[in-house]
Amino acid sequence: MADLLVKCMAVLTMDGEDGIIKGGEIAVRDDIIYHVGPAGSTPGDFTPERVLDYPRMVAMPGFVNCHTHAAMTLFRGYADDLPLMQWLNEKIWPLEALLTPEDIYRGTLLCCAEMIRGGTTTFADMYDAMGRVAQAVDESGMRANLSRGMIGFGARGEKALAESVEFIKEWHGGAGGRVTTMFGPHAPYTCPPEFLKKVIAAARELGVGIHIHVAETKDEIKEINEKYGKTPVALLEEVGLFELPVLAAHCVHLSDSDMDILVRRRVGIAHNPQSNMKLASGVAPVTRLLEKGAVVGLGTDGASSNNNLDMLEEIRTAAFLQKLYTGDASALPAYQALYMATAGGALALGMQDQIGRLVSGLKADIILMDMHKPHLYPLFDIYAHIAYAASSADVHTVIIDGRVVMENRRILTLDEDAIMARAHKCAEELVQRSANNGNG
Amino acid sequence: MADLLVKCMAVLTMDGEDGIIKGGEIAVRDDIIYHVGPAGSTPGDFTPERVLDYPRMVAMPGFVNCHTHAAMTLFRGYADDLPLMQWLNEKIWPLEALLTPEDIYRGTLLCCAEMIRGGTTTFADMYDAMGRVAQAVDESGMRANLSRGMIGFGARGEKALAESVEFIKEWHGGAGGRVTTMFGPHAPYTCPPEFLKKVIAAARELGVGIHIHVAETKDEIKEINEKYGKTPVALLEEVGLFELPVLAAHCVHLSDSDMDILVRRRVGIAHNPQSNMKLASGVAPVTRLLEKGAVVGLGTDGASSNNNLDMLEEIRTAAFLQKLYTGDASALPAYQALYMATAGGALALGMQDQIGRLVSGLKADIILMDMHKPHLYPLFDIYAHIAYAASSADVHTVIIDGRVVMENRRILTLDEDAIMARAHKCAEELVQRSANNGNG
Repeated sequence: MADLLVKCMAVLTMDGEDGIIKGGEIAVRDDIIYHVGPAGSTPGDFTPERVLDYPRMVAMPGFVNCHTHAAMTLFRGYADDLPLMQWLNEKIWPLEALLTPEDIYRGTLLCCAEMIRGGTTTFADMYDAMGRVAQAVDESGMRANLSRGMIGFGARGEKALAESVEFIKEWHGGAGGRVTTMFGPHAPYTCPPEFLKKVIAAARELGVGIHIHVAETKDEIKEINEKYGKTPVALLEEVGLFELPVLAAHCVHLSDSDMDILVRRRVGIAHNPQSNMKLASGVAPVTRLLEKGAVVGLGTDGASSNNNLDMLEEIRTAAFLQKLYTGDASALPAYQALYMATAGGALALGMQDQIGRLVSGLKADIILMDMHKPHLYPLFDIYAHIAYAASSADVHTVIIDGRVVMENRRILTLDEDAIMARAHKCAEELVQRSANNGNG
Repeated sequence: MADLLVKCMAVLTMDGEDGIIKGGEIAVRDDIIYHVGPAGSTPGDFTPERVLDYPRMVAMPGFVNCHTHAAMTLFRGYADDLPLMQWLNEKIWPLEALLTPEDIYRGTLLCCAEMIRGGTTTFADMYDAMGRVAQAVDESGMRANLSRGMIGFGARGEKALAESVEFIKEWHGGAGGRVTTMFGPHAPYTCPPEFLKKVIAAARELGVGIHIHVAETKDEIKEINEKYGKTPVALLEEVGLFELPVLAAHCVHLSDSDMDILVRRRVGIAHNPQSNMKLASGVAPVTRLLEKGAVVGLGTDGASSNNNLDMLEEIRTAAFLQKLYTGDASALPAYQALYMATAGGALALGMQDQIGRLVSGLKADIILMDMHKPHLYPLFDIYAHIAYAASSADVHTVIIDGRVVMENRRILTLDEDAIMARAHKCAEELVQRSANNGNG
């Protein structure tokens, strides 16, 4: 890849709140950040083949979406405003049962196009047909951590575990290192302890982590308590899950001792505020968790419970929700919310030495935000503007792994029109198949 | 003005949930909607001088922003993440004291540019130097209901009331009917009953309504209770305020009997969910209010407590917040949230016979949303897509009072670059003046 120099109004390194370099520049060599500093500070031996000179833009690390189900873009708007169990039982699960690997590939491409346009450069996904998901990620130029979701009962669990092992062996470190993997046991209430122990053994053997839903709803807390006499977090601790690197999605309903376990074990928490609101799940105690020193990233969850994959919306909602929930307008300030969406997310995925900050030696995953818009004037505070006023459409250029993936809002790696048309067709046929099966 | 025909993928009339006309068209004659119906249904005697033919777009009524302080765009990002009283005392009020009428004009122009870009066609504003605000509204082509904000103590109150009377006489029905006015007593805790009674008499005489903040914070409830032994709503009822048309902003902390008063009196409630979250004020009981039959519109509040003027964000936040707050994922569904931002807002402003729906005879305030974006595919449900997935940048074209004010995201009435540059300069000079006065 060509050496690249990015010059802009300011660089937000996200490596500390004072890490704003006004009139900054970033030198990119191959897939790596070679240098970050004030204008003119790049060493003389760096002779870029291309200069992106954008004096009205702010450069920052690409967003890390810590929890989604990419292919569920196909269900966007298919079923809304329903109670969770009715939504799953009557709408989502019947449709999911009919998905083909080709559908999942198409839905993931649509997801990637949307995420690139919103400045997301890395995402953590849990779904099915993960080889096809990895293929879509590879084509899009994105970075992703992929898990084959597993329901851990009986033969279905065994099959899912075998497929997971196969997928991890094939894809971990794939797409030029842009694809990493984890095991994806769905949740404590869908994966009994015996199954989780097998997953732990396999993860230990393959040297990968575990992505799991934890403590999302009150019903889950009740069910696990009735069955095991403890909280989901305590159960997972007892099973030994947290001895491995874990990415725990949601963590809405936590006791004080649950929080202490998550902090002590350095569990990566994927906070999904919009999904938790839309499904009426509750409010994760993010302010308390951060006070205790927890590792917290942000996620969108799937597009059918959100209904988009917009990390700037999650940043804003996360901050506003904590202010409301704690009754303290100073809770979760702008920098901290942006940190969760970048460096914090990298930590949650165990990728802090590769992504999440703009410092030399890390991967060149960079976005440029165009600040020359009425809703971003005047400019007193860049962090506040991005956290509280900017929108995904302000993302002008996206660089992933040193490669310009979007420029001036045109994606260079994917054919967006074809992707939209095919996703439309997939969704239409899916609903037709569902109707033929006697569903809704 | 030229006769105009708008052809599109679908028209959302917002005149009932079944008011979706697929492959619809809208005929506009001068400032009025002449006809709305399926493709080809426009009467043959209508020969448009211009046809806007957009098969990938959805037409709907422009958004009605029921509560803002337009010129506060100048303070965007100046002070965030602070407790309310510290924010006001140390940051906002010292700066507001230094605002000139010219600043207010510049800030309002910036506000209008941002709102047009986000599909807002009408807004209700409460601020100072309202003649200059009206001038900015006139130039922008927008529709607005304007109130001179009044703090009702002593001579300051008398002066504000006299200026209000003068402003209303000059501007009510101005800008070709696009500007209407109200009296703007700030709040029960800043306007004592004797002052409110004078305002009521003046409003009655001039035949206009009243725009007021009500029950925004717990502190207000406490203060009014200590002073008068009742709630703010009960106090205003006793004073006779609700005998006039009233636009009541916030209404966060309400008793059951408060709600009954607001419903019985047909008070227009401006719900500002993002401001209420960001300032940690609380959650307005919107679901209960709607069940009781209240008139509820949506507002952004000022840009310094939001930090943008994005009605699609308010729609989404309003819906998600009610789902969370009631614990019921079916609360405040997509259509109802969109209704609040359009027809409901028109009702709240007492303008339901002019705006808020796309039906013949009403004013031609129309926006076109571009649905050909990855985050809006596939398309199962237009209401859900706009309420839960679309963003302000998807607003392609804006028509106000029959005039195309924005097309393909270019504003035709205002010079955006000049407005941004001047707003930047105003803000810089303001902070400089503030520093010279010994403020931070």
